[in-house]
Amino acid sequence: MHVNDLPTPALIIDADVFGRNLAIMAEHHPGERLRPHVKAHKCTALAAAQQAIGHHTFTCATPLEVIGMAHAGVGTDLLLANETVSAERLRAMAALDVPVTVAVDSEATIVAARDAGIASCLIDVNVGLPRCGIAPDGAGQLADRARSAGLSVRGVMGYEGHLMMVADRAERLASVERSMQLLLQAHRDVGGDIVSAGGTGTFDLHDATGITELQAGSYALMDSHYGRQGLPFDQALYVIGTVISVSAEWAVADVGLKALGMDHGNPTVIDATVWFCSDEHITYQPAGGATVGDRVRVVPAHVDPTMAMHEAAWIVCDDEVVDRWAIDLRGW
Amino acid sequence: MHVNDLPTPALIIDADVFGRNLAIMAEHHPGERLRPHVKAHKCTALAAAQQAIGHHTFTCATPLEVIGMAHAGVGTDLLLANETVSAERLRAMAALDVPVTVAVDSEATIVAARDAGIASCLIDVNVGLPRCGIAPDGAGQLADRARSAGLSVRGVMGYEGHLMMVADRAERLASVERSMQLLLQAHRDVGGDIVSAGGTGTFDLHDATGITELQAGSYALMDSHYGRQGLPFDQALYVIGTVISVSAEWAVADVGLKALGMDHGNPTVIDATVWFCSDEHITYQPAGGATVGDRVRVVPAHVDPTMAMHEAAWIVCDDEVVDRWAIDLRGW
Repeated sequence: MHVNDLPTPALIIDADVFGRNLAIMAEHHPGERLRPHVKAHKCTALAAAQQAIGHHTFTCATPLEVIGMAHAGVGTDLLLANETVSAERLRAMAALDVPVTVAVDSEATIVAARDAGIASCLIDVNVGLPRCGIAPDGAGQLADRARSAGLSVRGVMGYEGHLMMVADRAERLASVERSMQLLLQAHRDVGGDIVSAGGTGTFDLHDATGITELQAGSYALMDSHYGRQGLPFDQALYVIGTVISVSAEWAVADVGLKALGMDHGNPTVIDATVWFCSDEHITYQPAGGATVGDRVRVVPAHVDPTMAMHEAAWIVCDDEVVDRWAIDLRGW
Repeated sequence: MHVNDLPTPALIIDADVFGRNLAIMAEHHPGERLRPHVKAHKCTALAAAQQAIGHHTFTCATPLEVIGMAHAGVGTDLLLANETVSAERLRAMAALDVPVTVAVDSEATIVAARDAGIASCLIDVNVGLPRCGIAPDGAGQLADRARSAGLSVRGVMGYEGHLMMVADRAERLASVERSMQLLLQAHRDVGGDIVSAGGTGTFDLHDATGITELQAGSYALMDSHYGRQGLPFDQALYVIGTVISVSAEWAVADVGLKALGMDHGNPTVIDATVWFCSDEHITYQPAGGATVGDRVRVVPAHVDPTMAMHEAAWIVCDDEVVDRWAIDLRGW
C-alpha cells in the first residue's frame, strides 16, 4: 500500500531514519549500556527492534508497560523506573517470568513492593528534577531499609530531566556532571551494580559521569522539541493528514490535538506556518498552494504522548507501507 | 466499589453534577434546540443520557463517531460537522440506518459526499474562526452546486469557536451576534431549515441570534478552561490519582500528561498548586500535607482530549462507583 492510501490521521515511521537512529545510539551505548525507555513509544514491536540491535534490558514507566513487554517476550530485565503502591499491579509484575526491578523512594513503596513479592529494586534518587526520588543523603539509609525488608537492591537511578533542554551544550554537560555527582554520592552509600540515568537529550554527555546505563527513548523516533537540540538523530515519526479545507490564506488538515501530544506546544508542518490545532484540525499557512485531498506531514512536538494517542503506527519505506505496529502498551 | 479502590489514573464522572449540567442545558435548549456534540466525550453511554433528557439529534467530529453512534443506536439524526474526502468513510456513513448529514465547504467535499451516496449536507460557513467553512458570500452558490449534484441541502452551520473564551459577557454577546449575522446572511442564500452554531461558551447568547440549534458538548462534564467563564455548569469530570512520592516541598501523583489534554495548559488540583506534568506524573504543592497512597482529584484543563486518552470513565455517586462507561468513540 502506498503511504497516501492510509486513512488519516495516520502515525507513520520512516523505516530508514528509524534504523539509522537505532544504529547511532547502539554505537554510542551498545548492549546493556542502553536501557531503552519504552514509554517513548509504547510499542513492543519497536522494542523488539531495539532488542535486535543488542539492547535487552528495558525501562518502563507504567506497570502495564512492564507486563506488556513480558507478555510479548521482549527484554530479559525490565525496570519500572517509577513508583507505585498498587498491590494488584505489583503482584502482576512479580508473577511474570522475566525479572522485574522497581524504583522505590520511600518506606511505603518498599513495603508495597515487598508485600507483593517483588524481588529487586533500585533506589530512586532526586538529582535536581522536582519529581520522584529520595534526597541523595537519605539514599543509603533507604537501601538498608529495603534490604532488611528482603529486597535485593541493585543500585540507584536518577533522572536529570530538568537538564534535557538546556540549550548550550557546555552548560548542559557541566550541569549533568553536577547532577550525576549527586547520584554517585548516593550510589556510594547504596551499593549495587547499577547506576541508571540520562535520556536522549544527554545521551552523549555521560562518557565520564560514571553511570552504568542510559535510559533513553525519544532518540528512536524523535520530535520537534528534541529536533532543536542539535542531536544526531533525525525525525522518523510523522502524523500524516489530509487537507480537508482550503481558504485564501490558510489550509486545514485532519490532524488535530487528539492525534498529537500538545504539552510541548504546536506541531510543525514542513514548508508551512502552523497557526493552531483544534480537536480534529490543524490550521496552517502553506508556503505553496494547497488543494483539498493533498497529504501533509505533521511533526509532533512531543513523541511520547503522541504515540499514546494512536492504536498503531505504520512503517513506511520509500513511501510504501511495509508493516503495521500496534501501540500495544497504552494505558496503565 | 468505593472510588478510592479504582486503579489510577482513573477518569471519573460525578453523576449528580453531570445530571444537573444536563438538566440546566435541556431547560435552556430543549429537544432539538440542542444538537449535543459527542466529540467532547466520545462516549455513547453519555450520549444516551443526553438522549434520555430529550435530545435526539447529535453532532460528531469524525466519521468514527458517526458510525459508533449509529451502531449504538443513539440519535435519530447525525451530523458530521466536519469535512472529509475519504470515500471509504463516507460510504460507511451512507450505509448506516440512521440519517447522516455532512458538512461541506468546497466542490471537492460535495463530490466526495455525492459519490459515496451521502444524501444530505449542511453548507459550512466561516463566521470568523480560521478553520473550515466557505466565506459567507460564497455559500449560496455552493448550495446550488450541492443541489445540482443531487445532495439535499438542509441549511448552514458555522462555529464561532474564536469567541468561546471572550472574557467579558457583553463583548462576547456582541461578537456572537456579529458572527451570526454572517451565518444568517449565508442562510438567506442557502435556504433549508437548519442554522446550526454555538457551543458551551456561548450557550446563553443565542436567544436572539436566529440559530435553530446549538452544538454544545463540554457543558456535560466541563473543564477548568470553561470553568473560569462563569457558566452555570459545574465540574463533573476528574482524573483520580494516587500519591506515589512526597518530598518536603512537593508531592507527586500518577496523573501525567498521557492522562490529560494539555493543549489548554496544566490541570488544576483542588487546594494545591500544580508545578508541572510529565508523561506519568503530576508534581504539585499541596496546601496541607500529603502521604504516599493518598488519593488526589485532578481537574483537566480541556475535557475533549482528556476523554480521548482513556478507555473508560467511572460513574461515581456519593463516592461509590455505580457504572463504567466505555469511551467507545475514540479514533477516526
